[in-house]
Amino acid sequence: MTLKDIVLKTRSYRRFNESHRIEYKTLENLVDLARLSSSGANRQPLKYLIYISQEDCARVYPSVVWAAYLKDWDGPEPGERPSGYIIILGDKTIAEGFGVDHGIAAQSIMLGSTEAGLGGCMIASIRRDQLRSELKIPDKFEILLILALGKPVENVIIDMIKDGDVKYWRDSEKNHHVPKRPLDELIIKL
Amino acid sequence: MTLKDIVLKTRSYRRFNESHRIEYKTLENLVDLARLSSSGANRQPLKYLIYISQEDCARVYPSVVWAAYLKDWDGPEPGERPSGYIIILGDKTIAEGFGVDHGIAAQSIMLGSTEAGLGGCMIASIRRDQLRSELKIPDKFEILLILALGKPVENVIIDMIKDGDVKYWRDSEKNHHVPKRPLDELIIKL
Repeated sequence: MTLKDIVLKTRSYRRFNESHRIEYKTLENLVDLARLSSSGANRQPLKYLIYISQEDCARVYPSVVWAAYLKDWDGPEPGERPSGYIIILGDKTIAEGFGVDHGIAAQSIMLGSTEAGLGGCMIASIRRDQLRSELKIPDKFEILLILALGKPVENVIIDMIKDGDVKYWRDSEKNHHVPKRPLDELIIKL
Repeated sequence: MTLKDIVLKTRSYRRFNESHRIEYKTLENLVDLARLSSSGANRQPLKYLIYISQEDCARVYPSVVWAAYLKDWDGPEPGERPSGYIIILGDKTIAEGFGVDHGIAAQSIMLGSTEAGLGGCMIASIRRDQLRSELKIPDKFEILLILALGKPVENVIIDMIKDGDVKYWRDSEKNHHVPKRPLDELIIKL
């Protein structure tokens, strides 16, 4: 696959074949991609939690806030939930802020997940207090992002944006549509 | 190349063969990778400026603050300067904040630059007022990142970190060394 193929296939997936379990090593390899990616001033302040067992996934799931634009959908049903999570933390003993380090890291991980035959979603909308308490995350770590991973079972279609409406939506066949702005709107000439 | 190969080759390069000029289309394709990458709540608030001519590159160069850890190096000499820039802006008429969108976008672009035979550096340390004035960037755009690009002429070596010292350094043969933390320091168990 070219990088463009990988990028095109790396959609935000929110429904999975939950019976497909993920190897720990697979997620460890994805974190290694993040490790080898850029970090502001090379500080490398990010830490990672990996969860793959059904029991652990059930502990993470309730703290994820799913798909704000889908008002009548609270998240994937049992059987379609993620079978793995990578949680990205910021180590406050290393840096006060984390800039876009977690964006860089998350993108490496999500692209890697596609190559590994998986998919998922970057989630910043998190019930942080609940997650911290459930997983016993020490205060020195800021909770930055949850990457929910699994074997996607949904079809994600990129549409051209209409009337500036960025809201993604589902059609009657449960295809997930994502409106994207065209390139000539993004590249500006001064 | 596997994604791991691409990630490994995507180092932060700061010295280039400046005589190697970059096609506009090449950088446009890189922005398209960013366009097709994740954006928080799918808002897609990022805009991009592309510069490839020698004249335009000379206008951008003075606003870049180079390599804070290399105290006796003010940036690449003439002949080793970037031959292209992508500047990532945040459109404040679309979103108030940009989360890690520009980290995600920048990582897609930098990985793509490797595949395209180029390399470069994400730079957040920018003389923003000077750049805004020089390029006449309207106030509605926040200046987020400069991606300096070119045909790298330097060798970047990943070292294992020693005594927690994250500072990159240059050896007598001008090889650029970058200490990286090991995986078992990044993945924590609670």
